[in-house]
Formats: sequence, structure tokens, C-alpha cells
Amino acid sequence: MERVIWQQLDKEGQERALRRSDLVQDTQVADTVSAILNRVKSDGDAGVKALTEQFDGAMPADWVIEPDEMAAAGNRLNRSLKAAVDQAIDNIGRFHSAQQPQTLSLNVASGVRCELRSEAIERVGLYVPGGTAPLISTVLMLALPARIAGCALKVMVTPPPVNDAILYAASRCGVDALYTIGGAQAVAALAYGTETVPKVDKIFGPGNRFVTEAKAQVSQQGTAIDMPAGPSEVLVIADDSANPAFVAADLLSQAEHGADSQVMLVTNSASLADEVAAEVARQLAALPRADMAGAALAQSRVILADSLQQACDISNAYAPEHLIVQTRAPRELLPLLRAAGSIFLGPWTPESVGDYVSGTNHVLPTYGAARTASSLSLADFQRRFTVQELTREGLAGLSNAVTTLAEAEGLRAHANAVTLRMEAQP
Amino acid sequence: MERVIWQQLDKEGQERALRRSDLVQDTQVADTVSAILNRVKSDGDAGVKALTEQFDGAMPADWVIEPDEMAAAGNRLNRSLKAAVDQAIDNIGRFHSAQQPQTLSLNVASGVRCELRSEAIERVGLYVPGGTAPLISTVLMLALPARIAGCALKVMVTPPPVNDAILYAASRCGVDALYTIGGAQAVAALAYGTETVPKVDKIFGPGNRFVTEAKAQVSQQGTAIDMPAGPSEVLVIADDSANPAFVAADLLSQAEHGADSQVMLVTNSASLADEVAAEVARQLAALPRADMAGAALAQSRVILADSLQQACDISNAYAPEHLIVQTRAPRELLPLLRAAGSIFLGPWTPESVGDYVSGTNHVLPTYGAARTASSLSLADFQRRFTVQELTREGLAGLSNAVTTLAEAEGLRAHANAVTLRMEAQP
Repeated sequence: MERVIWQQLDKEGQERALRRSDLVQDTQVADTVSAILNRVKSDGDAGVKALTEQFDGAMPADWVIEPDEMAAAGNRLNRSLKAAVDQAIDNIGRFHSAQQPQTLSLNVASGVRCELRSEAIERVGLYVPGGTAPLISTVLMLALPARIAGCALKVMVTPPPVNDAILYAASRCGVDALYTIGGAQAVAALAYGTETVPKVDKIFGPGNRFVTEAKAQVSQQGTAIDMPAGPSEVLVIADDSANPAFVAADLLSQAEHGADSQVMLVTNSASLADEVAAEVARQLAALPRADMAGAALAQSRVILADSLQQACDISNAYAPEHLIVQTRAPRELLPLLRAAGSIFLGPWTPESVGDYVSGTNHVLPTYGAARTASSLSLADFQRRFTVQELTREGLAGLSNAVTTLAEAEGLRAHANAVTLRMEAQP
Repeated sequence: MERVIWQQLDKEGQERALRRSDLVQDTQVADTVSAILNRVKSDGDAGVKALTEQFDGAMPADWVIEPDEMAAAGNRLNRSLKAAVDQAIDNIGRFHSAQQPQTLSLNVASGVRCELRSEAIERVGLYVPGGTAPLISTVLMLALPARIAGCALKVMVTPPPVNDAILYAASRCGVDALYTIGGAQAVAALAYGTETVPKVDKIFGPGNRFVTEAKAQVSQQGTAIDMPAGPSEVLVIADDSANPAFVAADLLSQAEHGADSQVMLVTNSASLADEVAAEVARQLAALPRADMAGAALAQSRVILADSLQQACDISNAYAPEHLIVQTRAPRELLPLLRAAGSIFLGPWTPESVGDYVSGTNHVLPTYGAARTASSLSLADFQRRFTVQELTREGLAGLSNAVTTLAEAEGLRAHANAVTLRMEAQP
């Protein structure tokens, strides 16, 4: 981990210290994905099969998994894993159920009632990546909020093989249909529908760059998506009260996600930085994914700040996906912190609790998107819409304003819709 | 307006009846916009100036309007227009202030505290279109929620000329800087920043297809946008209790927006359909924008439904931006209605009240996006993020679940971050 002293950097150096690795803007990926999408759009199931054989070697014979088959996996699952999934469901369920919005109904003026209501998005598609690790937790983070929001149809896709824990999690979260396909062709199947896979309104979930590009492309064609997914990242703010072993463990749990993970330590204590570096080296050696974590660490940084205030400014400028605060009084920094996807306060709150079981969602804005984008939450599975209802008297009270503004904008028919009503017999 | 009887249509015919006009997918527009964006990115103010001269004829000499200049316009504005703007601000302000989110703080389990918080997006850009009508109301619909949300910097752009009503509205809504530029170059200035125009985090507002394409392109490059904007549309559900003159006035107030506006009437009464057609013809003749409205009506439809239940199903399949319900008991249909941007209930609630002054936002999802997208609201000017804080005991209660799930996913360092803490001296 490269170490820099913030105060000694000029503006350009500071920007460089917070720069993320360039996202691969590969026009070849875009073209490949575009061709995959078109193939599935025109050929349906046959297209999915041909593309899966081409990219993944073979199309699974039983790629359609029914709810009773998901449920049956629960009987085979070992007790401790089942208990872990159940506990995660309890906590994630509690936190997301508490997010259920209330209808806002307000008499804005006498006889003018305005409402803001929320309703579930009807059909959702959930992409659960396979790849280097089978992500049971991603099933929970996508399907459970969808169930709590009240989405009528929850369709999940994931590349094979699926294990019993994934099936059990899907069953507990009320997934209606599961297809063991992955890649851009699975995204295409959800976006357009095939003979087998139902078309959905919105697609959720992380994936590799083909999946991400496919989601970006279908989002320009009328299918909504949750958010663009980039490499995972953590920033830790620590002072000299922090336990260097804890900080090192948190940095490593982010780094093991992949070689493109980004890991940052911002501290006002040079001696803590030394101790963390030593701990990282010690703990890294014992990790099964040490290669990946080491590669990620190689492009990561330690930034020495003047003060905790400056550390917060640095974090705000970076806008991390995960922000861990290990200082004497972590909650006191909360008002200074802007633009992080999820914040972990204090020594007993490692990022991995949020990844699995604290209750918060682990689908978070990456690559600086935390400046504008939100942590995945119940609201992402719902749509807000307004309702208004006026009485004749309510309309009378607004009629001058409407006609005056409509005339000022040159929109006579807008004015007519009011004047004609006011002239009518009640 | 073409008339069809829903029950007599086959599935294809029904789909055709609800089809919107194709959006122009002009690769030339995409290329032109991409070149404009690149020019502003590399040349800054000089690029904006050159492009504005090229596309709009001349760069305004005084294209930077300071807050005191906006405020001064209020002294020149005629009293009735000023009062109309003030009344709109009161109502829109009340409805959007009532949307202020509360922090959700929950002890998910003993010693496990999870929070969902909201915070304003820091720097927002507001695009107010010029074109056929100067849109005072759009200033209010964008800038007022931004102010109420607490956005630190509100930058507005709009093509010249700007009138005193627009300046006064901007001033009352706390716009920090106003630039009289428009088109894709104005979007580029907001997305990248220039010597004069500050870079923003998120861009809001409707516009022509160059503006819409520019927003779509910068949204792939890290600047957030509110939503894609399509042609405006209304669907009216009416029964034989509806006043045909009211229904006709509502259809026309949508049709006058532009030749690409879409207007639909769905009714279970053939005689109402006849009476509305006659009223449309009568009212149309007197409109200054009769050409535009006539062109929109030419591609619009009247759908005869069997029942009000079927009328609701048709509306749900179409997913209109605006939905007007003029039936005997309009509120009773509310539970049957899905997927509309904003709903207007009863005879005294014309769409134009929502366009200006009822309090709801007039920036709404178009082109079927109401299935997944929300009416613009305070939440769009804020970001949600989660916070979690565990005690040692709280972590102890979760540690088995975290380590079990982490091992099942093959992520040892995730488990380590917990076990190492549990082994440490408290």
C-alpha cells in the first residue's frame, strides 16, 4: 500500500491519490453484448441456449428450478448454514420491513388534497452472480426486499452450479422462478422475455462487465435497472485508538473480493499506519485468496491526514462504497461525513457484518456514485406516484394562478380546462 | 381520434392500440451530441460559446445572471403574475416539505443498531427548456424541491430570452447561479464544468431530443440524471357521469404541448365518446396552438371498454404519465390503478392544476416508464445511506452467522474480521 501525506500533495497529487483505476471502456465488450442481446431478442430460448453453449461450454439440462425444488433444498442443508441464513433473513427482513413507506396525504390548501403513494414494482428480475464464490448473501439482499415490497413476480437468474444454500435462501425469500443461466444472455432473457423466462420491469444485482454492460444497454431500451455496479471498495478512517489488527482485517476482507477492489486507509496517526501495514502483511499470508487480495492491496493507499476533520473531507472527496470509522468517538464524525454508501461505526462493526447479517443492504453505490446514488433499499422495489383531488371550491381557489401561469407560458388550453369548469353549473 | 372497441381486438390489436409513436433513435443525433460533449469537455467556455453561435445564432453577451439580478426582476413583475408564482410556491413548497424523510434507527437485534438516513445531493444542475413556451413552472418544479432538500449549490441553465417571471421564480427558489444557455452544450457545461459554469453531481429537467440524448450520454460517464424524458401524455378514464366539455378540455390541454403528445380516452360509454369528440372539435377551433393540438389528436385514440375495471386494466397496460379519472366514484378505482405518474381524481381536478399549482410535481415518468419510475419528488434530490453500529455483545450474537456464511462463500478474510475481534481482549 502506497503511503502519501495529504498536506504535502498539491491539488493534482490529491486527485491522483483518490483516483480509481480506470473502468475498462471496451467497445468490444459493448459490441459483443449488443449482439448477445439481439440474439436473445430474436431467438428466445434457442438464443439463450446457443449463447450459453458458446460462452459457458454447456447449457444445463435442468435450467428451470420450480419453487418446490427450492424448498426441498432446505431439508438437505446442514443445520449451521441453515441457521445462518435464517438469522440473516430475520435481521435483513426487520430492517427492510421498517422502511415501508406511509402514504402522505396533505390538504395543501382548502379543498386541495395531494398525496404521495408508493406501490411495488410488479415484475422484478434478480441477477445473482456466480464466479469465484457462490453468493448466498446476494440472494437475500435482492429477493427479501422484493418480497417485503410486495413485488408480484420475482424471477432469479444465476449461473450454475447452484448449491442448496442458494436454493433454500431463494425459497425463504419467495422467489417465484429460478433459471440457472448467467451472463449477458440471462439479462437479455429478463429484459425481453423468452418462451420460458418471463419479461420483467426492472433488473437488480451485480455482475461482471458483460452483465453490467448488458444492464446498461437494456436500461436505454425501457427496462429499469438498480444501479451501475463497479469494483468494490472500502475506506477506513482510523485514529491512534484503533486496533491495528481490526483495521487490517477490514482492509483484507475488502481486498479479497478481487484484484480490482480498492482499499484505502486514512489516518491522522503515522504509527497506526505502520502497525496496520505490519498486520496486513501478517494476516495476508494465511488467506486462501491471498493472490487476489495482494493484487488489490498493491494499488491501494494509506493517506496521512492532519486531523480527523481532514480525514472526513478526504473520504467525502472519494465517496466510498463502504466507510469504516474506527476512532475514539466515531458517531461524532457522522455529521461531517457525506457521500458514502454505508457507514460502519466503531471497533465492533466490521464491514462483513453488513455484507451478511446486520440487516442493512450490501448492494451499494460504487466508483464515486455514492455522491448521488443510494444504498439499495425498499424504495428501489417500489414506485412513488402522486394523487390529487380537488373540490369545486379548491379549484376556485387555484383558478387565477393556473390561468395566469398558463397564459404566461402561452398554453391557452391549460387555462381553458380551468375556466370552462369554473363557468359550468356546479 | 381513432376509435376502437377493446373487446373486439385480438392481442396484437390491443397492443397496437396502446402503442406509442416510436422514439426517433437517430444515430446522427447521438453522434452530434457526443461531438458537442467532447468539445465542451476540452474547450470549456470557448466551446460553449462556439457551439451556441453555431446552433442558436449568437452567444448572449450577458449569459451569467447573478442572484441580485434575479431578485431585482421581482420589482418589475406585474402583480397578478407575481401572485400566481407566489401561490404556486406556497403549495409546491408545502407538499414537498411534507416529504422530508425521518432517519430510521432500529435495533435489529440486541446491540445491533441499523439506520437509514437521507442527505441532500450537494450540487445540482437544473435544465429549464425554452422552445415554444417559456416554462416558469419548470423552474418551480426543479428548484423548489432542490432548495427544500437542502442542496448546497443549485445551478440553472435555460436558453435565452429569460423573462422576469423566470428570474423571479429562480430567485424565490434560491437558485445560486443562472446561465442563459441551452441545448446539449448546456448539459455538457453542467456535467464537466467550465471556467464559468460549476460542475454538478446530478442534472434535472426536461428538454428536446438533443438535451435528452446529452443527459443519457453523461449519465453513462458518472453524472446522475433525474429520468429520461419522452413526449408528454395523458389518459382519461371516464364514465357516462363525466362532463364531456371537461374531458375534452383535459385532452386538449395535453395535446397542445406538441405534435408528439399522446392523448387517450378510455370509457365504457359510447355516447360519452361521441359527445367528447364533438366538444374537442368545438374547443380546438378557438386555440392559438390548434395546429399542434390537432396533429397530436390525429394520432390519439378513444378506447371503448366493457367496464371500468377493464378501463383500469387498459390504463395499467399503457402506464400513462398523467391519468385523469372522471367517474361517479373516482377514489374507488384507486386500488385498481397501477403504473401512472400522477393521478387526477374527479371533475374538479384538471391536469393543469398539477402542471402549475396544486403542489404535486409535474416532472413525471413518460413513455411507459411509470411502471418502474417515480414522480419527481424530494427523494430525487437526496441520497439514502445506511449506518450500522454494533456493541461487542451485538457482534458476538452475529459472529456465527457471519463466519458460516463467509466460509460458505469462500471468503475467509470476511470471517477473520469477526473471529479476530471475538478473540481480542474487550
